[in-house]
Parts: sequence; structure tokens; C-alpha cells
Amino acid sequence: MRILVVGSVALDSVKTPFGEVQEALGGSAVYFSISASYFAPVSLVAVVGQDFPQQHLGLLRARGVDLQGLHQSPGRTFRWHGSYGYDLNEARTLRTELNVFEHFSPSLPGSLRGAQVVFLANIDPELQRRVLQQTNSPRLVAADTMNYWIEHKPRELRETLRLVNILAINEAEARELAQEANLVRAARAIQAMGPQVVVIKRGEYGVLMFNSRSIFSAPAYPLEDIHDPTGAGDTFAGGFLGYLAKARDFSEASMRKALVMGSVMASFAVEGFSVAGIKGLSLKDIEARFQEFKALTHFEAL
Amino acid sequence: MRILVVGSVALDSVKTPFGEVQEALGGSAVYFSISASYFAPVSLVAVVGQDFPQQHLGLLRARGVDLQGLHQSPGRTFRWHGSYGYDLNEARTLRTELNVFEHFSPSLPGSLRGAQVVFLANIDPELQRRVLQQTNSPRLVAADTMNYWIEHKPRELRETLRLVNILAINEAEARELAQEANLVRAARAIQAMGPQVVVIKRGEYGVLMFNSRSIFSAPAYPLEDIHDPTGAGDTFAGGFLGYLAKARDFSEASMRKALVMGSVMASFAVEGFSVAGIKGLSLKDIEARFQEFKALTHFEAL
Repeated sequence: MRILVVGSVALDSVKTPFGEVQEALGGSAVYFSISASYFAPVSLVAVVGQDFPQQHLGLLRARGVDLQGLHQSPGRTFRWHGSYGYDLNEARTLRTELNVFEHFSPSLPGSLRGAQVVFLANIDPELQRRVLQQTNSPRLVAADTMNYWIEHKPRELRETLRLVNILAINEAEARELAQEANLVRAARAIQAMGPQVVVIKRGEYGVLMFNSRSIFSAPAYPLEDIHDPTGAGDTFAGGFLGYLAKARDFSEASMRKALVMGSVMASFAVEGFSVAGIKGLSLKDIEARFQEFKALTHFEAL
Repeated sequence: MRILVVGSVALDSVKTPFGEVQEALGGSAVYFSISASYFAPVSLVAVVGQDFPQQHLGLLRARGVDLQGLHQSPGRTFRWHGSYGYDLNEARTLRTELNVFEHFSPSLPGSLRGAQVVFLANIDPELQRRVLQQTNSPRLVAADTMNYWIEHKPRELRETLRLVNILAINEAEARELAQEANLVRAARAIQAMGPQVVVIKRGEYGVLMFNSRSIFSAPAYPLEDIHDPTGAGDTFAGGFLGYLAKARDFSEASMRKALVMGSVMASFAVEGFSVAGIKGLSLKDIEARFQEFKALTHFEAL
């Protein structure tokens, strides 16, 4: 199954206690695409400026990512400047330059309208819906969002959520969206807004998935060397939806394996700056870490 | 195998967003004893004042807890006053009255010296060691500690740690003890201080266990109704060591099941104030929740 992703392509300047990069390849659609590309064909819908380095396009093409939907507009590419302290769970945004992203209005080439799996990365919920309206009834729609949209476009976000099968959202934002401190109740409240499946991202504490009847908990992989958490959530979503698109199976058992695969990909992402941790993996690397997740969580019955 | 626990017996006044109690039964040795009593015989070593209610002694006796080592001293029982906000991970201590606990110097009745499993709850590391010196080479020694001892008695704590097989410690305190932000490195550094097994408690995010060769991750049970997190860590330790004492098997596979059993018991503890959630369980309740942990974490191989 082909996956369509709409989101940002960015040049990130990031500083962590373990190093820093300037104007490195980033953006939600980039992390997602590279991660998902190990499992299924991916088409990326986004905008870049005229200053966007050719080598980055080359990297995406080398991973087989379809760039028909990547618009190049007059002006500069979206830039994000951020830093992290030793508590790598929380990014501090130092500066955001929207640039060409400010007037981004995605229009899908006809060839992309039939994608069966769609990921609406964390952008304006109105844009998320506009993309969805251009598709021909995909089988699975997943989305991400953030506090900014919860606070500034609550009505538009609610309209988008009605059309979404899976919402992947950070823990604090789930509580904010549902206006409920207890996470189980928050997830149930979000399910009532539309998404049948709610995936709560908890950074170094892993993820919780709420399906209609059950809850699944997957840890994050305990790493000795975390260099940069930027993009971990989108890399997670790429592994998750990539696995589902490859399996063509949206049963709960398949979703659980997919969730672990998302966690596997995120664990590689944080080991390097920018996309260094995920751009050159082999399927053998990925399967080996999946086995490590099995070993990390296995216990016998009573 | 008999378990010996040394720690506090307290009267707790606790307020959470979901209610409050005044002078309710509490203390690390109490939560531990009640929890462990479902699995193995427990002897409690602690001190109370002359004001300690008879009904609490009755509750402990009804659970089969051996109170030969519970000293009654002239004066008032140890009291703790605390509160929690909606973020139930962090207790605010409003007042501590040490009372008879201030001059507590545990001496073990001869009949308790042969206990094969020992739990040194979170008390002064000098007292922990004094208890240990009165035992006849137990097969398994576990301990807890906190920031206060890490900061005020670092040398004494290090001496105790050399004698301990398992250290159960909160996440932030593990980082502080090891002076290392990365949790994997922190656990390895603590293992180098003595304990072969380091169990990192992460509240609502579950626990990580570091053995010599592997890491095991167990989630906390996602609950819709958490009333009072007081005692969750000691209840966890009670289920963990209780299971091991019953199994008489300290292999890694057994320790993993024990860790889940600790998490099971902690999940009951937080559902009620004081010991309400754990005092009247059946083995059927406990086994059913163990199965729920299995369902919560299970995923198939690739």
C-alpha cells in the first residue's frame, strides 16, 4: 500500500548536550518518509524554498521517496532552531522561521490521490483536512497535532479528528485536548471525538495505544547514547504506518507489532543528529532491534 | 522463605485531588508487609508509640505479619503529612514528625535472625546496615533509599550498598546517586557500587530492571481511578520480594515475573487511600491482574 504524508520539510539547527548541527535536514514529513520507506512506498507532500540543498533531495530519492508532491516555492525553506538540556524529553524552541511554509496550501497531483494510507503530520488542522479532501477514500488515516492547534484552532481540529482513524499525540497534549488529567480517561475522551485508535507518545517512557477494547504498552528502548531526540515522534509514526502498509493488516495484533516497529525506528533516530540515525539502516538492523524489544519486555506466565 | 523488613510504621495524613485521610495507617514497612504477606511469611521490624491504634496491629496480624520485632516506645508514633496535585508522581511533604522514630535503633529478636530474604526500606543507611549485621547471611538482601541519604550520608550509603543484592530506587534518585543523566549509564554505575540488580522505579511509567546481562521493562497498569500514590513503591517491593521468596528462585526469569507481581500489587495500592487497596485482596484478584499485565504488553514476533 502506498503511504501519503503531508508535513514539513525543514532545515534544523539543533543543540543538545552531546553536540550540535546547523541547517541540517529535518521536518516531520522527512523523518516520517525516511522511516516509512523501509517498509512501503511513500509519497511526500510539502514545500521547500529555492535554497533547499539538492543533496537532501538526493537522500530522499535514494530512499525511494516519491517527491512529485514536493513543491518548490520562491523564497526560503522553513527553519527551526531548538535546543535540549540533559532532560531530553523537552525541546526549547529558540526560533521558528516559517518562510515558504507560511502560505503552504497543499494540492495533490492526481497520481497521489489514490494513496491507501495517509499521515497528516503536525500542521494546521485546516490544511490536514484540505489534503484529506483531495484523496479518494484512503483505508487508513492517521494524524498528529500539538498544543498550538489545540489552543488556537480547536474547532478546526475537532473537524479534522472526525475524519481520522488514528491520532498519535504527546502525553501532555492528550491531557490538554481532552481536558482530563487521567490518561486513560483522556484517551477515551479523544476516541469519542473520532479516532478509533489513540496512540499516546511519552518520549523516553514509550507509547500507550488505546484501541476499542484494549490498551497496549510499549517501552522506549533504553539507550546509552541519545544524541538528539528531534524527529523521534515522526520517525515513530513512519515505522508504525510503514509496517501497517506493508502488512496490509489493521487488526489489533498487527497494530501492536506496528507500534513496536515505530518504537524501533524512533530508537535509531535519537542515536544521531538530523536523519543520521535512520538514513542508512538495513532490514537486518531493524529486525535485530525488534528482537531486542521482545527481549526487553518478555516475561513468562504465572 | 521468611522475609524480614525494617522500615517505618506511620500515621499518614494525605490529601489528593480525589479525597483525603487523617492519621491513616502508613509507613514503608506496613505497605511492604501487607503486600508481601500474600506470598510469603513476613516479619516486621519497626517502632511505634504508645498512641498506636490497636486496630492497625489487628490488621497486620490478620494478614499473618509477625510483629515480634515491632517495638512500642514511650511517646508518639511517627507521622507524615503530605499532599499531591493532579500530577500524582510527586508528593509534597507538608510536615514530618519523627517522634519515636528519632531514636529508633532496631535490635532483632533471635528468632528473626535467620530470615532468608531481607528488605531494608528507606531509612538511615546506618540503621539499614545495623539490621543486616544482626542477620545470619540471608540469601537475598534488597534496599531502597532516597535523595536525603544520598545527600547527607553518602559514605554510609555506599557502605550499605556494598552489602545489597538489589537496590530499588526512584528514577531521579538513581541519576543523583550515580551523578549521571543517562539512565542506562546510571544503573551500570550503581551496579558497580555493589547491587547486582538495580530496579528503577518510574511511578506511572513503570519500572526498569537492570540485571548483569539484560534490561527488563514493565509498565505501570493504566488506571482510570488513582486515588493515592502513597506507598506504591513499598507495595511494589513487597510484591517483588514476596514473589521471589515464594518461588525460591532468583533466576532472571523469576525476577521478571516478580517485577510484574510488584507492579500488580502497586496498581492495587494506588486505587485506595492508605492500605485500603491492598488489605483485602484474594489470590484470584492478584492473578487476574497479572494476566492483565500480560495482555497489556504482549506482541507477536515478526
